[in-house]
Amino acid sequence: MAIQHPYLLFLGDAGDPLAAKTAQGIAHWRPEWCVGQLRLEGCKADLGLTDMTLEDAAAAGAKTLVVGVANRGGVISEAWMGLLESALILGFDLAAGLHNRLADVPSLAAIAAQHNRRLFDVRHPNRSFEVGNGRKRSGKRLLTVGTDCSVGKMYTSLALEREMRARGMKAELRATGQTGILIAGSGISVDAVVADFISGAIEWLSPANEPDHWDLIEGQGSLFHASFAGVSLGLLHGAQADALVLCHEPTRRHMRGLPEYPVPELTVCIEANLAAARLTNPAARFVGVSVNTSHMAADEAEPLLRHIERHLNLPAVDAFKDGVAPILDRLD
Amino acid sequence: MAIQHPYLLFLGDAGDPLAAKTAQGIAHWRPEWCVGQLRLEGCKADLGLTDMTLEDAAAAGAKTLVVGVANRGGVISEAWMGLLESALILGFDLAAGLHNRLADVPSLAAIAAQHNRRLFDVRHPNRSFEVGNGRKRSGKRLLTVGTDCSVGKMYTSLALEREMRARGMKAELRATGQTGILIAGSGISVDAVVADFISGAIEWLSPANEPDHWDLIEGQGSLFHASFAGVSLGLLHGAQADALVLCHEPTRRHMRGLPEYPVPELTVCIEANLAAARLTNPAARFVGVSVNTSHMAADEAEPLLRHIERHLNLPAVDAFKDGVAPILDRLD
Repeated sequence: MAIQHPYLLFLGDAGDPLAAKTAQGIAHWRPEWCVGQLRLEGCKADLGLTDMTLEDAAAAGAKTLVVGVANRGGVISEAWMGLLESALILGFDLAAGLHNRLADVPSLAAIAAQHNRRLFDVRHPNRSFEVGNGRKRSGKRLLTVGTDCSVGKMYTSLALEREMRARGMKAELRATGQTGILIAGSGISVDAVVADFISGAIEWLSPANEPDHWDLIEGQGSLFHASFAGVSLGLLHGAQADALVLCHEPTRRHMRGLPEYPVPELTVCIEANLAAARLTNPAARFVGVSVNTSHMAADEAEPLLRHIERHLNLPAVDAFKDGVAPILDRLD
Repeated sequence: MAIQHPYLLFLGDAGDPLAAKTAQGIAHWRPEWCVGQLRLEGCKADLGLTDMTLEDAAAAGAKTLVVGVANRGGVISEAWMGLLESALILGFDLAAGLHNRLADVPSLAAIAAQHNRRLFDVRHPNRSFEVGNGRKRSGKRLLTVGTDCSVGKMYTSLALEREMRARGMKAELRATGQTGILIAGSGISVDAVVADFISGAIEWLSPANEPDHWDLIEGQGSLFHASFAGVSLGLLHGAQADALVLCHEPTRRHMRGLPEYPVPELTVCIEANLAAARLTNPAARFVGVSVNTSHMAADEAEPLLRHIERHLNLPAVDAFKDGVAPILDRLD
């Protein structure tokens, strides 16, 4: 069940631009889906979209009000309630990726039911899955994997989707986290799935397809993250990836949230991911490295990328600065 | 919250002895907890325990009626309802490892609330967990891992617990599946935990302890099982195992439920498990192999065990036939 677009992006009372980074991601990757932004008094974020009232946006065709802001704690704010209720009454669906559920707010649930509107709580799977079956399926799949969490897997997957489409290829993001789901309009928050069904959920998310169709599957976590590696392994097995892209942030001093754990060497990370991926697709191979160099000086970043290329014999790019064309060239 | 013993084991209307294998496991490993068995008319299973009515068992001190039988589909049977309701009224708690929940049966939930009795649905975690933190904790932990599912990980863990206690060591089973939980009286059905919390749940299950205390953690699945490997990896990381025991069933033609997937080589399985385990405990090592030879002729089983010992330089035993003493000797 896909989230209907166009979207009106709700920035609420964002305390700073970072609080609206979900909305920012949607506006960056799906500008054609965004009719405008709606900000409450005191909002410190601005995406540069047209400021609209609910009525303006409804007249412009918007179907869904997307909560693109997170306050401290990532929960639904009391200050938003009047606006969210009005949106439902005016005919909008609501979508949010917050920790608590829109559907668990009694007034929102009641109004949605009364007006036949839908509430999308994208952090919470709304269906059950089968156990993974490991059977080979048609179509091509590329999975982004990481040395760590939050190193650019979603960004890289989206950049690959955009570049593939620009080349006339059939390509589709398969989102596995809340921001990715709002950008793609559908997906599964895989870390919220019951453990027995991780690979099964990914098999469901990226089903058999035409032989030349690419699913770009957004990876999560890292095989080397002591908190989340189970999710990453289930993703690798469920994806049956033909191609893998390694994502990396070279200034990270330790694994995110785990001060005692060093970031793995790229070669070690590649070998472990390949070994796991080949269980369900013996032809799996790495086709590139996506390095987030935003915290490095330009005269350090460029030599590092060239060093990684020579060392691993794979194209290495900063997807944000350079795009991902060299990685796609490797796919042919 | 532990399940209170002594138990009265409910065998219901078991269609054959195999249908009561949960009860059989409990009676085998915790005979001192079992005051008797209760069978309905037509029951085809018999554990050799004293047949008791609810009243007999209550008089003998039983605290919990354990549903030790599974009918087709593993759900609560209509034919049991009268008996289960009577047990609650007479002062028993109920425990079951079935797919549906005792707590979801309105009459049982109502009677339990009215009589202040507890319903243990051990397949369903009744609490939430923190994300794993990977911090080193005191105490010793041994994890059983497998080439496949259902190769004797629970049995081996229990045999190790029994042998350790016989040697005067401090040892405790940490159960991760429904039968193990009923045998241990507590535990977590780890494959039912939300994916983000697999390793965190195992950290919670096997907390810091005295330096000479051993947790025997029941493993699940296999790193090489395309459906369930995420659970197995989270278990490895959460356990911070000092010692690993590999469990294997040599007549298995393919991975359970996956006809296209071969069983991995023992050496490959050992290497992959060691690499994963060493992320959170660099001192992790294998101390033995537990081989289920029940489907082999004796004159084939013995040479196979000796071959494995020579090849892997690890003690290899059939835990059921030979016990696990040689593995414990390796721990010293």
